[in-house]
Amino acid sequence: MAYDYDLFVIGAGSGGVRGARMASAAGARVALAESDRFGGTCVIRGCVPKKLLSYAAHVHEEVEDAAGYGWSIAEPVFDWPTLIANKDREIDRLEGIYQKLLADAGVSVYLGRARMIDAHTVAIDDEQGNQVSVTAETVLIAVGGHAVVPDIPGHEHGITSREAFHLKSLPRRVVVVGGGYIAVEFAGIFNGLGAEVTQLYRRDKILRGFDEDVRDTLTEEIRKKGVALRVNADPAGIERRDDGTLVVVLKDGSTIETDAVMFATGRRPNTTGLGLDRAGVEMTHDGAIKVDDYSKTTADNIYAVGDVTNRIQLTPVAIAEAMAFVDTVYHGRPRAMDHANVPSAVFSQPPIGSVGLSEAEAARRGHRLEIFRAAFRPMKHTLSGRDEKTMMKLVVDAETRLVLGVHMVGMDAPEIVQGMAVAVKAGATKEIFDATVGIHPTAAEEFVTMRAPTRTVEKQAAE
Amino acid sequence: MAYDYDLFVIGAGSGGVRGARMASAAGARVALAESDRFGGTCVIRGCVPKKLLSYAAHVHEEVEDAAGYGWSIAEPVFDWPTLIANKDREIDRLEGIYQKLLADAGVSVYLGRARMIDAHTVAIDDEQGNQVSVTAETVLIAVGGHAVVPDIPGHEHGITSREAFHLKSLPRRVVVVGGGYIAVEFAGIFNGLGAEVTQLYRRDKILRGFDEDVRDTLTEEIRKKGVALRVNADPAGIERRDDGTLVVVLKDGSTIETDAVMFATGRRPNTTGLGLDRAGVEMTHDGAIKVDDYSKTTADNIYAVGDVTNRIQLTPVAIAEAMAFVDTVYHGRPRAMDHANVPSAVFSQPPIGSVGLSEAEAARRGHRLEIFRAAFRPMKHTLSGRDEKTMMKLVVDAETRLVLGVHMVGMDAPEIVQGMAVAVKAGATKEIFDATVGIHPTAAEEFVTMRAPTRTVEKQAAE
Repeated sequence: MAYDYDLFVIGAGSGGVRGARMASAAGARVALAESDRFGGTCVIRGCVPKKLLSYAAHVHEEVEDAAGYGWSIAEPVFDWPTLIANKDREIDRLEGIYQKLLADAGVSVYLGRARMIDAHTVAIDDEQGNQVSVTAETVLIAVGGHAVVPDIPGHEHGITSREAFHLKSLPRRVVVVGGGYIAVEFAGIFNGLGAEVTQLYRRDKILRGFDEDVRDTLTEEIRKKGVALRVNADPAGIERRDDGTLVVVLKDGSTIETDAVMFATGRRPNTTGLGLDRAGVEMTHDGAIKVDDYSKTTADNIYAVGDVTNRIQLTPVAIAEAMAFVDTVYHGRPRAMDHANVPSAVFSQPPIGSVGLSEAEAARRGHRLEIFRAAFRPMKHTLSGRDEKTMMKLVVDAETRLVLGVHMVGMDAPEIVQGMAVAVKAGATKEIFDATVGIHPTAAEEFVTMRAPTRTVEKQAAE
Repeated sequence: MAYDYDLFVIGAGSGGVRGARMASAAGARVALAESDRFGGTCVIRGCVPKKLLSYAAHVHEEVEDAAGYGWSIAEPVFDWPTLIANKDREIDRLEGIYQKLLADAGVSVYLGRARMIDAHTVAIDDEQGNQVSVTAETVLIAVGGHAVVPDIPGHEHGITSREAFHLKSLPRRVVVVGGGYIAVEFAGIFNGLGAEVTQLYRRDKILRGFDEDVRDTLTEEIRKKGVALRVNADPAGIERRDDGTLVVVLKDGSTIETDAVMFATGRRPNTTGLGLDRAGVEMTHDGAIKVDDYSKTTADNIYAVGDVTNRIQLTPVAIAEAMAFVDTVYHGRPRAMDHANVPSAVFSQPPIGSVGLSEAEAARRGHRLEIFRAAFRPMKHTLSGRDEKTMMKLVVDAETRLVLGVHMVGMDAPEIVQGMAVAVKAGATKEIFDATVGIHPTAAEEFVTMRAPTRTVEKQAAE
């Protein structure tokens, strides 16, 4: 039986575009459907615009810090619409690059929402209400996820990160709801740009899953910078007054007046309406597409990569999964994406970089540990006078000497940890770190000059 | 025979202080002599004040760059005396820390110039003209080096980096002579602070010894920033007019009017007047103390570390040599400092980070190479509009797949390369780099996402 295409990709995000391009380069006839903008969450409403906003959020501090270096600078004035317009122009440019990459790769593009009719047939509904139906030998689902909002009265008065990038003006007061990385990033952005920010988190400590020292350090630092972080605080509802003021009512009955509420309360895979059942594609209990190590779903010819599979929701992971998929299906080199030691960053103020196991997770796995930890004022702030601390930490297996985890909160942490992640991937021991000469004066050199363990953690019974 | 001390250290720079402290911690009775300030070149007149000044030099660009992010900021005003005073206060603080470290370690401190009387006897002349003489079983020489100035007419009108840190005011025009890292760093500092800078270098390309792509990239970038770099240009003399203006006369007969001339034309070990011959300590042809792999001189009980040995003139190298010395002599663990793959940074604008072999050096050693190279506008400058490029490069052995060299010019390069240096030390192959997931969006991720070699370099006959 002849199919219209060898591969049909649903979704033009990082994973889908990479999969489509690489499969096409391998000789496959490839089509792709996208119902929204090209580039996916990362480019359109995620990492890229978020990082651009976080550059903007840092300017006021840069100006303040310059005084200690002999610079007199008048109070800077910020204009939100300028930032948003410039950011949008850059996003448009990047979207154009994604479209061009697909065109140059000879990928047929369908604009519209795709759904599975059966395991080999995809129907695409375009915005004009037209429908086309095509067949493909293989299907790659890379439709990503979306922000979810708690089902509380008045939740419609709130926004998510998606809308935050398109606010008409910077709210004077913002309540950010959530304790994950998106919540701390946006709390830092709004705060840095001059808004009064309250961050509410229903549990007792932000950034669940990160190393405890990272969580504690960031908690302290964002409070110093002026974010009113309230933990064990959970909204019960939002009311809107006639003058537009929002009132967040907490479960303890207290209220907070604000001009905007942003929910960063989790994300969910975009599986609704995909027709997965008709194609024999099963989902996990959390609504993600179930895949094996090779990103294959429960249907033999259908694969899925990226956030829709809810493994590690990061752009480079989706890309790596897509490339492993192409190797597996189109190069005859079955290859499982390795999800161990995936580094990540949080573009909070200050930012976080992290790779490998947290101390708690390493202890849980039964390692005897040596912990090396340093906290210091970064050199820049010796003259700026800013009270900001950098925290750096190595989690070392006391027996194998392998560095299991590298964690940092502080200036340049995301840039610094990338190389450390290569070292961890290479199986670097603490002795290799010690034998590496420092680059002086940097913050990063602290990772190779930690001589004595701060403490040891004895072996626990592995769970 | 009983000596006054087990160890006498000459010089309270990075190497000397570390050696003294660690030997004392190992149970040795230690004394140290210093004739100047505590902390050495790095702390007092090198890396530390240089980096503080380079932070200051970056402010004007930060302010310019902020416009694209929606910030309106009036033209900043710079005051050199404020910067210098704040820098001096920080250096004083650090010097105090060095003094306290020695005191806390129980090291006896002699203020004055030390010289060898014989292999076991050191005489110290203090500023009051008093002389004391002490004996020691072992001597560690860590007296560093100093800037040298070309012997041309009027050279006395010029300064070196040492004086540059204490200028009363920022010269309106500066000529920096030299093409090494100190020259480019100071050219960038003066330029960033608002001076008109001409940099003269007698050879055809700055930063000899660095990778050619690094040299070419930095040449282009510093010119874009306004440094008037002139290569194949060598001063023949300096004249001083009555109004204080300096006139640099070049060997080609052309002249440059300026307000200050800074020589960064090399450094020489501080061996003069040390009495080395009386102690049986031989020197190399370039005036450095000759040492073996264990930093032992030609005298059996005398060791030397740091710049005075002219191996690699970097603070962390001096410290590592000192620690290897202590292991060797006081812990019964003979250990040679490993001088391979020592990373380094140049705090130019933009900065450089580098570890391992340059492409040319790797080719010279007979490796067949794959070169991976990327040049791009850093993300920050997509909105700032600044025309600044980042260059990143991997030098890979095509057969062993080992990453032999990692080189970068661009924002955060020194911080980024530190982790890469750990990876190189760990013997990471290109495949390990490829298997490491990127941290998005960072510049550093480019080092793990370079898929296809830019070019290959065939095997040359090893020399």
